Amino acid sequence: MWIRPAASLILALALPFALPPAALAKPAEPAAPPSPSEIVAAAPVGDWVAIAPAQLLVMDLAPTADGAARQVVIQLLPAPWSQGWIGNIRKLAEAHFWDGTAINRVQDGYVVQWGDPDAEDKAKARALPPTLLSIPQGAYTLTAGAAPALEGPRLADGIYAAVAGFYQGWPIAMGPGDTPETWPVHCYGTVGVGRDMPPDSGTGAELYAVIGDAPRQLDRNIAVVGRVISGMEWLSSLPRGKGDMGFYRKPEERTPILSVRLGSDVPGLPTWQYLSTASASFARYVDARANRRDPFYVRPAGGVDICNAPVPIRIKP
Amino acid sequence: MWIRPAASLILALALPFALPPAALAKPAEPAAPPSPSEIVAAAPVGDWVAIAPAQLLVMDLAPTADGAARQVVIQLLPAPWSQGWIGNIRKLAEAHFWDGTAINRVQDGYVVQWGDPDAEDKAKARALPPTLLSIPQGAYTLTAGAAPALEGPRLADGIYAAVAGFYQGWPIAMGPGDTPETWPVHCYGTVGVGRDMPPDSGTGAELYAVIGDAPRQLDRNIAVVGRVISGMEWLSSLPRGKGDMGFYRKPEERTPILSVRLGSDVPGLPTWQYLSTASASFARYVDARANRRDPFYVRPAGGVDICNAPVPIRIKP
Repeated sequence: MWIRPAASLILALALPFALPPAALAKPAEPAAPPSPSEIVAAAPVGDWVAIAPAQLLVMDLAPTADGAARQVVIQLLPAPWSQGWIGNIRKLAEAHFWDGTAINRVQDGYVVQWGDPDAEDKAKARALPPTLLSIPQGAYTLTAGAAPALEGPRLADGIYAAVAGFYQGWPIAMGPGDTPETWPVHCYGTVGVGRDMPPDSGTGAELYAVIGDAPRQLDRNIAVVGRVISGMEWLSSLPRGKGDMGFYRKPEERTPILSVRLGSDVPGLPTWQYLSTASASFARYVDARANRRDPFYVRPAGGVDICNAPVPIRIKP
Repeated sequence: MWIRPAASLILALALPFALPPAALAKPAEPAAPPSPSEIVAAAPVGDWVAIAPAQLLVMDLAPTADGAARQVVIQLLPAPWSQGWIGNIRKLAEAHFWDGTAINRVQDGYVVQWGDPDAEDKAKARALPPTLLSIPQGAYTLTAGAAPALEGPRLADGIYAAVAGFYQGWPIAMGPGDTPETWPVHCYGTVGVGRDMPPDSGTGAELYAVIGDAPRQLDRNIAVVGRVISGMEWLSSLPRGKGDMGFYRKPEERTPILSVRLGSDVPGLPTWQYLSTASASFARYVDARANRRDPFYVRPAGGVDICNAPVPIRIKP
């Protein structure tokens, strides 16, 4: 088979993988070292953890011009990080706040953003549920007393933190010291809470997803609340806005949002799973991402940044 | 003005900037520290360097369904890195090799790839110019004797190199030691040479552009030859392919390439400029990207990775 660039580096984890039979009539050739996706495909069933439907946010966009449905599935961050904003997001979904709102901003290499397009106009803005909380800046991070221990492999963060690691399937950065701060990081596909200048001004009604290089400078400056686990292409391939910061200039350029619901309110949703970040399979996967030994690579990097070792997600087979 | 998330972080460098008048009737309020884009907007004319048209590759895609022209402008890497492949690319453009080829692959969060869709089929593949060179694996990097000294600020690379820096407007990584290897890095928008398994098998006829998080693990494994400086959105917003690795399943899903020419063969092209990476303005810009002090930010990161300090590019005003 003719292989095109980086053929063995498959973010989509979609390639079939067959382990050689345990016993062969004649000695097998030495197998090539497995690629990260092959390691993931070989992970035992017990290494996969189901994501509860209540941890999902399901956003249905208006269909494409040729009628294709566009569903985006977002996994919400587990406790204890960012739970104030996530509580607000649950209330907003239950109030059907986003139904009939739109994607208002697409800035190339940076973010897609959605919410009430009239939020700036007090006469036209949608009413927010009255029970939303105002979350203080301090909640962007958790200190050791409030945060659980990380699990699985630790990575050099390099620049934006002392080290980085994982917790229940999520990339988490950690500051220096004996009682370090921890915080969720901005990677491709991360979902966060838009805000005004005051750091406590984001409610969760205005959300964005990262569609470019990981904007790690946003860490600890905006609340991370989730990540897109399905339908990312419906956000990342939208036409870019021509206004400042990628806002659309004309209302008709916006993509309408039909509905946003908690996964627990959507019948018939498949079961999503993540590869346990405490599992041996995940440790092997991260090691392989840091040291590519599969045949395409001639110079393994010797390390990997936290955003370049995305936690594998799949629909339960 | 109501500010949406990360309003002060403008990758597009599009916001107007006005310095306060030097002398005011009454003392001015202390100005907020400038954002990176404000520093760039205030850079003196002499800090901008023109990009020669011969260093550009101009790709015209078929218009969109509603008739919009789609032009993508790629800046080729300057000598001495990757010049063997870039010489091939010049020959391919001069031979009009890509006219009538297509964008064949769009893998979300990873790459867009273009070239002859029939390259795998010997009976149908286009003939390559006979003078193309085969470039050895060793050319992915240059050692100190062959590479010029870097200029301007040095950055901690963190993970993928000893340090990173710049040369004539380009991000360059550097290995450890007294006579270190140097190599161009993969960032958002980087253009590289697709290849088969043998590391010398890429000619330059098959090219890709990065549309996701910087795939630094490709550094030193594939040839970097350029970067998209205009029209990136025409690549990044293409529909994702549904086949393995994002290849389109049906020929009609491919986006046709009308022509690819060297900029020196395209009449009426504007003059593109980059901010000199040896300039004081660029050093201030990188410092501000590493330490966001403009009003939106509450916790400056204290560092920046090489791909998150993209070299500013503009059309000569």
